[in-house]
Amino acid sequence: MALYVQKYGGTSVGSVERIEAVAEKVKGFRERGDDIVVVVSAMSGETNRLIGLANEIQEQPDRREMDVLVSTGEQVTIALLAMALKKRGVDARSYTGGQVRILTDSAHTKARIQDIETSRMRADLEAGRVVIVAGFQGVDEHGSITTLGRGGSDTTGVALAAALKADECQIYTDVDGVYTTDPRVVAGAQRLDKITFEEMLEMASLGSKVLQIRSVEFAGKYHVPLRVLSSFQDGPGTLITIEDEETVEKPVISGIAFNRDEAKLTVMGVPDIPGVASRILGPISRENIEVDMIVQNVGGDQTTDFTFTVHRNDFERAQSILEQVVTELGARGCSGNAKIAKVSIVGVGMRSHAGVASKMFDALANENINIQMISTSEIKVSVVIAEKYMELAVRALHTAFNLDKADTVCE
Amino acid sequence: MALYVQKYGGTSVGSVERIEAVAEKVKGFRERGDDIVVVVSAMSGETNRLIGLANEIQEQPDRREMDVLVSTGEQVTIALLAMALKKRGVDARSYTGGQVRILTDSAHTKARIQDIETSRMRADLEAGRVVIVAGFQGVDEHGSITTLGRGGSDTTGVALAAALKADECQIYTDVDGVYTTDPRVVAGAQRLDKITFEEMLEMASLGSKVLQIRSVEFAGKYHVPLRVLSSFQDGPGTLITIEDEETVEKPVISGIAFNRDEAKLTVMGVPDIPGVASRILGPISRENIEVDMIVQNVGGDQTTDFTFTVHRNDFERAQSILEQVVTELGARGCSGNAKIAKVSIVGVGMRSHAGVASKMFDALANENINIQMISTSEIKVSVVIAEKYMELAVRALHTAFNLDKADTVCE
Repeated sequence: MALYVQKYGGTSVGSVERIEAVAEKVKGFRERGDDIVVVVSAMSGETNRLIGLANEIQEQPDRREMDVLVSTGEQVTIALLAMALKKRGVDARSYTGGQVRILTDSAHTKARIQDIETSRMRADLEAGRVVIVAGFQGVDEHGSITTLGRGGSDTTGVALAAALKADECQIYTDVDGVYTTDPRVVAGAQRLDKITFEEMLEMASLGSKVLQIRSVEFAGKYHVPLRVLSSFQDGPGTLITIEDEETVEKPVISGIAFNRDEAKLTVMGVPDIPGVASRILGPISRENIEVDMIVQNVGGDQTTDFTFTVHRNDFERAQSILEQVVTELGARGCSGNAKIAKVSIVGVGMRSHAGVASKMFDALANENINIQMISTSEIKVSVVIAEKYMELAVRALHTAFNLDKADTVCE
Repeated sequence: MALYVQKYGGTSVGSVERIEAVAEKVKGFRERGDDIVVVVSAMSGETNRLIGLANEIQEQPDRREMDVLVSTGEQVTIALLAMALKKRGVDARSYTGGQVRILTDSAHTKARIQDIETSRMRADLEAGRVVIVAGFQGVDEHGSITTLGRGGSDTTGVALAAALKADECQIYTDVDGVYTTDPRVVAGAQRLDKITFEEMLEMASLGSKVLQIRSVEFAGKYHVPLRVLSSFQDGPGTLITIEDEETVEKPVISGIAFNRDEAKLTVMGVPDIPGVASRILGPISRENIEVDMIVQNVGGDQTTDFTFTVHRNDFERAQSILEQVVTELGARGCSGNAKIAKVSIVGVGMRSHAGVASKMFDALANENINIQMISTSEIKVSVVIAEKYMELAVRALHTAFNLDKADTVCE
């Protein structure tokens, strides 16, 4: 008998029929003797409907009241799911975040969980009840309703699993697991049975948006085994867990991530003196533009080229800021390119394997793909290339690192 | 500077535009220096939408979960109203029933208020804030969400006014007050400036459905001055209050109430012996049929006729029960009539005035309206007449008791 915290997202509870299907699934787990805590999101579309109402009144709605408003979305789902379980003879009880109680700080619309009381849930579990908790929401020390921000239901699930010391936190979603790369780009992409928290973080932040990043961090920190599964089909999904020291044969690379959301900016001929980086990036960050990759190369003539990437939506704004900076710094000029893509190889295995980066560069060179920027971390290597080569690069790397499914290698 | 509890019902907050209008109204009160606690219902249609979702799952939804579900309706309104006030520079804070906290018993879907904590509301009022409370809901001692049943927002308003010792509880609705009778029936019907709680109870239960009966009882019990006003037009409305001993000239009759929801049943030739009434009405009440008027006349031949009224929807069910009763009692037979109407004159003044009832009977006789049943209480006289005469009777009585507007008397 195990204790599972199961989280069902918006599309999994998007209609009364879907809610009934979730109830059927949960009933199956109960019949096998497992204890179940269910975390649910708002029915898909509902949160946007509520935000729409608020925006009719205020463009920037009051944050405290926004939380009072949108938290009703999950409250509707918990009640309906409890009814669907009771109808099937499965005893269940629903709780809002405040009722559990999930204590957060007072940062409305993006609160962080501070503490979770488990006594009430434990009593229900002991009485044989399924506990249903509204995701994404909590209550601050003053008793005001808070929300954890978009996607926060994953975080609720992980936090409950940690507090209850659950055997697993299962995130039911519309994909059946984490893949070596996007199957829409590489036909031979494979579902991973296992991936480490760190790898998942790199994969998620690079564009494989299966799980909310914060929930993965949280799961890693509290060692909560996290499993991503499909709510529409059966299957083992992907287990996200700590690095298993005993596994001898680790794959060097777990997956290939990519995105085309970025744009590249270069300031050319910058005097190579201290403080230049902050004089370039200071004005950018003061405009709330987030910078991702940064590369600086020392040239031979006491000047340097300084390149960084921003979100593509911020490209034009960043460019006009840089024109000002060029004048101030006496740099030679600036250039930009929005038609780029970032492709990354991710894997904890590269820590103990030399030559991973050069294997990557070789594979790209074989396809005549020019590398515009390179950035590395402990468990990933990212390159920026021309956008038009993105799919080609991903497929080449997927094959080069032996990630293709056995039956698709010859394709 | 006064403290008002203002309740706005579903049509008054039926859209974002309406909510903005309520905010404008509340802002006006704040600018005059009054302290305001606002109680709101769910946006019109919302409660039915939620019940519809529940009914897709369960015909008889679990009551605890039903309360979790439908209480979201008011929660949406409080948040939107708070935003609309903040947008106007009026500081405001919203609370669910559980947050206030409005403590109720655990009778889900029809809970009764047991206690209200006022410290939080008082602190907000002292800080210059408008307090917005979700109507119709509370929380039981276990922290479970409860609702007071349909129309319960009026009760929330009155209960808050009592707990806060407010100067007045103002119920904003789609009519501009309580009238001497329905203006759709009598063109000369007048808005009453004042009416007593007892009169209002008689008027409400007789079909003038302006206020929820329970809220009037509650207001009477705790001496909360209650005012009914229109949320769509300005005006003093009608004040419902305790009898003012100092007013010398009280109108004898305050209003004429009527309804055509009832049906009449008669058991004829019943033996005139003890226990007959309970042998007739026992089987009726065991079938959960409510009985309104009851009249029994002793005849000369040791038998009597026993007549009572039930809701028209229960007429056929009651009739088939009576057929059984007639056999058991050895009565002569039974008869029924669903085409009846009840017309009542209501007024505290009749306590000190003789001849009110005969004046009523005279007025009806002048119009050749036959009286089928008569029933009296301290402050009302009700008669049952043929349904087709109802409007005629109401107009005749309205004139006979001098209730017509001055400028319509000659109509």
